[in-house]
Amino acid sequence: MPKTESGNAPFSYDGLDRVIHEKARLGLMTSLMAHPKGLSFADLKQLCGLTDGNLSRHLQVLQEAGLVDVIKGYEGNRPHTSCRLTKAGRRRFLDYLAVLERLVRDAAKAAGKEDARSVRLGILPT
Amino acid sequence: MPKTESGNAPFSYDGLDRVIHEKARLGLMTSLMAHPKGLSFADLKQLCGLTDGNLSRHLQVLQEAGLVDVIKGYEGNRPHTSCRLTKAGRRRFLDYLAVLERLVRDAAKAAGKEDARSVRLGILPT
Repeated sequence: MPKTESGNAPFSYDGLDRVIHEKARLGLMTSLMAHPKGLSFADLKQLCGLTDGNLSRHLQVLQEAGLVDVIKGYEGNRPHTSCRLTKAGRRRFLDYLAVLERLVRDAAKAAGKEDARSVRLGILPT
Repeated sequence: MPKTESGNAPFSYDGLDRVIHEKARLGLMTSLMAHPKGLSFADLKQLCGLTDGNLSRHLQVLQEAGLVDVIKGYEGNRPHTSCRLTKAGRRRFLDYLAVLERLVRDAAKAAGKEDARSVRLGILPT
């Protein structure tokens, strides 16, 4: 935003990386964060409620962005695909989450200002 | 997800309404939540760091979904467009935020499990 001073667009949330922000990929990143040793294609599919096609497509986007490693191998005679966060993926996801946290705080504060009873968000210190 | 029991896809985050989740619209919803009396087109543009074209396009999506009212009028002789959340918009945004909060918690918990020092999210009770 060249025409405005920094800080003049407090609701632009520039740090919400679009590669991560997409809903299905956000679920993938979160489940991989919860399983640092990696997850099989089949497990990811179930945990995130995705079809084969959607899972492949979104994993490819994450892989091309350097956020996820996809390791193709065998378990016995059967092909077995395993996925895990890269170091950079983990770091970028933490950065993303910090922005998301700010957004939730902003919104909760805004909601509380208008009508405290409506705030069902319980994460903020009272 | 007809083939799995409810709860079998804990990372699907079905409640992340795509109309709201898009990054620019998320900023618009948050800034309108913070200004319940409404904001002018010019103010929204600045607060969210959007161009005229992007702002119009995203406001139209929010308006068609019934989340935002766009009121066209005059201030003196000059056209003046004002925007505010509808009641339904406010309610749906709060629902959305509850899911987002769960996601941030899940991810923060996952990050903490692997390496507590990496967690820079400060919203969770310790």
